[in-house]
Amino acid sequence: MKSPKGRELITRVITAPGDDAGLFLTNLRVRGWMDHETLAKHRADLVMVALLGDRHGRAAVDYSVNPALGFPDATGPEGSTQPVSHVLPAWDCIAGNMAVTALLAAERHRLRTGQGQEVLFSLKDAAAAMLGNLGIIGEVCVNGTDRPKYGNALYGGYGQDFICADGARVMVIGLTDRQWRGLLKATGTQDAMAQLEARLGESLSDEGARFRHRAAITDLLSPFFARHSVDAFAKEFDSKGVTWSQFRSFAQAVHEDPDLSPENPMFHMIEQPGIGTYPTPASPLDFSRIARQAPVAAPKLGADTEEVLADVAGLTAGEIASLFDDGTVTGPRGDKFFVNAAE
Amino acid sequence: MKSPKGRELITRVITAPGDDAGLFLTNLRVRGWMDHETLAKHRADLVMVALLGDRHGRAAVDYSVNPALGFPDATGPEGSTQPVSHVLPAWDCIAGNMAVTALLAAERHRLRTGQGQEVLFSLKDAAAAMLGNLGIIGEVCVNGTDRPKYGNALYGGYGQDFICADGARVMVIGLTDRQWRGLLKATGTQDAMAQLEARLGESLSDEGARFRHRAAITDLLSPFFARHSVDAFAKEFDSKGVTWSQFRSFAQAVHEDPDLSPENPMFHMIEQPGIGTYPTPASPLDFSRIARQAPVAAPKLGADTEEVLADVAGLTAGEIASLFDDGTVTGPRGDKFFVNAAE
Repeated sequence: MKSPKGRELITRVITAPGDDAGLFLTNLRVRGWMDHETLAKHRADLVMVALLGDRHGRAAVDYSVNPALGFPDATGPEGSTQPVSHVLPAWDCIAGNMAVTALLAAERHRLRTGQGQEVLFSLKDAAAAMLGNLGIIGEVCVNGTDRPKYGNALYGGYGQDFICADGARVMVIGLTDRQWRGLLKATGTQDAMAQLEARLGESLSDEGARFRHRAAITDLLSPFFARHSVDAFAKEFDSKGVTWSQFRSFAQAVHEDPDLSPENPMFHMIEQPGIGTYPTPASPLDFSRIARQAPVAAPKLGADTEEVLADVAGLTAGEIASLFDDGTVTGPRGDKFFVNAAE
Repeated sequence: MKSPKGRELITRVITAPGDDAGLFLTNLRVRGWMDHETLAKHRADLVMVALLGDRHGRAAVDYSVNPALGFPDATGPEGSTQPVSHVLPAWDCIAGNMAVTALLAAERHRLRTGQGQEVLFSLKDAAAAMLGNLGIIGEVCVNGTDRPKYGNALYGGYGQDFICADGARVMVIGLTDRQWRGLLKATGTQDAMAQLEARLGESLSDEGARFRHRAAITDLLSPFFARHSVDAFAKEFDSKGVTWSQFRSFAQAVHEDPDLSPENPMFHMIEQPGIGTYPTPASPLDFSRIARQAPVAAPKLGADTEEVLADVAGLTAGEIASLFDDGTVTGPRGDKFFVNAAE
């Protein structure tokens, strides 16, 4: 990428002709030879989507964006003062999906008008927008409150974790009215809850009331779970439409949950050469008119070099050979796999 | 929605003619009169995207999906055995973005072929696919390990939180080679780190080595932060390209970070009637050919009823009046706002 010949090649691949080409998604810094203006000299209708770190062009990663927005401060056991960063790189996952939206929207515009364009956004802006979308900015500005840690309680409705007789931990949800009534019925706590409502002088049919009185509700539900092992109520909870789940570790989830195995048509057993064979997901989206593509093993870094140079850049066999000879490009490299990273 | 007249109206709105119509995104159960087959009798090329709870059609919410997959078990202070659910409804945010991708992809197919279709997916499958995409399923199956809690450490590279002289907490990142070298330079720990490498007999230029030896690295970096307040190094860290951030609460973030204020062109001060005025985000995506739409106040539930009935369903003023009269539809209702929920 540092040699003029390498840059020329990359430009040729990015700006290749065709309706399904000229679509460039990157998280590199888009300056100089790789900016939209320069690339568009080679294909005027180029669509380019660039994901930056923050709007100032500084680098940022999921683990630096997240603490800046306040989530670790609101995560963890009630009463604790230690911030807890979540393990899921959620902002990467969200921004990655937004990049696809940007690409599809810009391609839609190109198809209708013939115009290409550049779409810029940043990991931090994606997160900041979500902070607003979730109502958290409004909550701070209007209520003047700073949300404390609520442990594993669902915020704004009823949802709580319980330890069962067999030591397993479950999460039960009473967010919607249907879920709330189903939970009381399945645990036989309707009468006890009606007595609580009488004591409080307040109906728990309002989700906000359920959140405020969650400790009292939890006290009434706890004995049911302390008396039963998960097996004793799992089927009944499912048949009665209770929204619930069991806390599992990653390994327990992979080994015990059929939804994470090839029993789920989304998963296929795929051999990743040099690593092993394990359930690998296809897209979660199931289109009725387009067969879901099965996942394939990740290619080695450089595995597609020749094919791309021939089919996309349109080079001859002789030209390709000389690029290999002078070291401008390389073929598959030992143990390096191509891995997509959102940062 | 329970009256035949109501259902007929909804069908008419969903299946209205035009290139920009006939696009239906829902998280309702799509059975009976609202399934794709029935609706497609009114518009054959209908595109419909339905987000379910799980693939079996059971209800699920972010807070029930997340424990089932193992994230709370791997989140929280090192050595703790308490699962910690994260506060961000990450799976809702991810699935919501996937729904947009599905809609745009299906509309793209329709534009090229004239065919409509149904796209089904579930919140749990979206999360399960991400578990695979992140390599966690492979990690369990190949290494046979169950990832323990690593506190606020960045997994697989170097990233750690530090308490500064002024009591503030910062996160610093040494994930890429450039970030790692920048961090050592800015903290003046190059020599100390070279001595650590000599003692270990191992180079820390490999990110995996940095993760394994993170405790020793943290020991060498801690004195710098213990000696300095954030103000003392913030500008230098930024100018030297260190990837870092400060832990803030939601309120601190909103009050202190200009990226969450109208200084950021993504945010506008919007008055939400009956609630207040606060920074509200536009889309984080900035298209060069399409001006970014400013955010607007959320409409009251029912505020657009008349307009939709006239412009989309094509009803006359008389027909609309009679629908209001017989209670099939209602206008704006007191304090109920229309809120999009991914579950």
